[in-house]
Amino acid sequence: MHTHTQLQSFAKSVFIYMGCPENEADTAADVLISADLCGIDSHGIARLSGYHRLWKAKRINATPTIKVVHETPSTAVVDGDLGLGLVVAPFAMQVAMEKALKVGSGWVSVKNTNHFGIAGTHAKMGLKKDMIGIAMTNASPLVAPTFSKEKLLGTNPIAVAIPAGEQPPFVVDMATATAANGKLEILQRTGKDSPIGWIQDKEGNPTTNAHALKEGGALLPLGGDREHGSHKGYCLGAVVDIFSAVFSGANYGPWVPPFVSFLPVVSDPVGEGIGHFFGAMRIDAFRPAEEFKSHMDNWISRFRSAETVEGQERVLIPGDPEREAEEDRRQNGIPLNDKVIQDIEELSKKIGVLF
Amino acid sequence: MHTHTQLQSFAKSVFIYMGCPENEADTAADVLISADLCGIDSHGIARLSGYHRLWKAKRINATPTIKVVHETPSTAVVDGDLGLGLVVAPFAMQVAMEKALKVGSGWVSVKNTNHFGIAGTHAKMGLKKDMIGIAMTNASPLVAPTFSKEKLLGTNPIAVAIPAGEQPPFVVDMATATAANGKLEILQRTGKDSPIGWIQDKEGNPTTNAHALKEGGALLPLGGDREHGSHKGYCLGAVVDIFSAVFSGANYGPWVPPFVSFLPVVSDPVGEGIGHFFGAMRIDAFRPAEEFKSHMDNWISRFRSAETVEGQERVLIPGDPEREAEEDRRQNGIPLNDKVIQDIEELSKKIGVLF
Repeated sequence: MHTHTQLQSFAKSVFIYMGCPENEADTAADVLISADLCGIDSHGIARLSGYHRLWKAKRINATPTIKVVHETPSTAVVDGDLGLGLVVAPFAMQVAMEKALKVGSGWVSVKNTNHFGIAGTHAKMGLKKDMIGIAMTNASPLVAPTFSKEKLLGTNPIAVAIPAGEQPPFVVDMATATAANGKLEILQRTGKDSPIGWIQDKEGNPTTNAHALKEGGALLPLGGDREHGSHKGYCLGAVVDIFSAVFSGANYGPWVPPFVSFLPVVSDPVGEGIGHFFGAMRIDAFRPAEEFKSHMDNWISRFRSAETVEGQERVLIPGDPEREAEEDRRQNGIPLNDKVIQDIEELSKKIGVLF
Repeated sequence: MHTHTQLQSFAKSVFIYMGCPENEADTAADVLISADLCGIDSHGIARLSGYHRLWKAKRINATPTIKVVHETPSTAVVDGDLGLGLVVAPFAMQVAMEKALKVGSGWVSVKNTNHFGIAGTHAKMGLKKDMIGIAMTNASPLVAPTFSKEKLLGTNPIAVAIPAGEQPPFVVDMATATAANGKLEILQRTGKDSPIGWIQDKEGNPTTNAHALKEGGALLPLGGDREHGSHKGYCLGAVVDIFSAVFSGANYGPWVPPFVSFLPVVSDPVGEGIGHFFGAMRIDAFRPAEEFKSHMDNWISRFRSAETVEGQERVLIPGDPEREAEEDRRQNGIPLNDKVIQDIEELSKKIGVLF
């Protein structure tokens, strides 16, 4: 077990080692560790050495000049100057929120950035200001559209955070693939088969081989196959790609550069870096905040108290599992698996930053 | 076969019979028949007698005063005054577009309305103005959230229309359930089983009984079950419900009134009518329109030319099937099934409006 402050502090030191200004290193570490805190282990400290390798490969700029390059009262495009997505994303979400303060809502598309951690953390920024927050990002192509043998979309997540009153907020954070890569990695480690509907093999046939993605296969869009609505998951992933990258001038579809430094970037980019998209809507831009919140409380209570199917204790509200993990991990620490600890220790030794 | 102008003209006459002003009857008929034109037979002329029955039951106001009741430069709430959703929705989308013209984007939540036809038709309104259009609506509860035995959400569709240049536009229009009720009705008519993942029985068990919904069961959210991501479909349906109704002051979740007049409205409403949500974003609020469109063309060409899995001819772009149906049906007419024709003829006779 490690405390989240230990992990945050190490991550911050690594970002400072890379040359980030202290306040940006602090923000980046907060965003990164927010994933570990809420139980999304694949997107937290486990990725730190990956960011470091990308920086070594000169694919991350530690001292970016992040700026708005196009705007209207309610929209903007932000150029991340190849900065850490962990820093570019909070900047862009802040722009969206400032616009929402002035004109009711703000919508910001971002180019020239990279992996931003978990989408939910950015969407949740608006909650304290009584705003609904929305965050999306595209990612390197692992998902095959319905009927395609080729991987053309990332797992392109959508996050939406909605404030409530007495109840905790409603927070969606979902990949638009049936299952994200992290879940497959767990199956691979434990030698288990994948359910049908998660992946296809290199010929495009459904498979239970959890290693199929590495063998030329693809993840499947939410729905799994045509009969179960995979065209809808494909549509959602496509909308995320377009809002994040075609709006901003980032790379889209199969051109999105990979997170891992050992894979080359494409030789014929159609834009700069990867893309994100953020939205903020003031709830009182629609109705008085107290009225909205009291109806959200009613919505949440009604769904939470729904009669369950046999064998299930409760109907969850989006955000429940992550919030409960965070309560536990803030108090009792964050469990890291051996491979992650080894990875951290190697990084620590290599760059001389104490863990 | 009937021509779309025949169907439009009959629908318009029925709306005029109900007391709608001529221009509103015309709009309502256009929206209704747009569903038949693009192959969504469940939402077109087949529903006309349902609107008439709702009006007879005094649950539709044929002469509404539709108005903006709350607004900021980029947001608004519209009160539909219990008008036809087919008329209220274009009004609200127009408000969103006017705001987008002025401040880059416009977002409108609507209360006190009812069924608005197909979401895609409203989303597509922005295309001619080089805007992205978004349309959603909640609907009466047929879908059980993951682990719930109770039906708490409608099939709550999401539509997104995105302009391109040389290519036809990208148009998503999808229910957030695995399969909408219309598809089940086809199985029922032909005596076929439903695939697993579409419905659960009244105990909440997966079933292939296509009649299970009428026997106390429920439709399932996109994903089908927890292992295949049904919690994501549930999240999407929930977001549509909240944006459409908690923002505006309409009924949400299990309180949403039914479309069919033989089912009573709830005795303890939490708002007024059902709710919709619309968005419009000017593409040049992000980057020059020509640049955006040329990248959309590139996006569409790349996905359309993807290598397919064996047995499939092509990877579809969202909107392809509906556009192709429309080209065919505009030219060759709209096939109606016997039950629908009988329904229309009965209505025609009952109210003395010539078909």
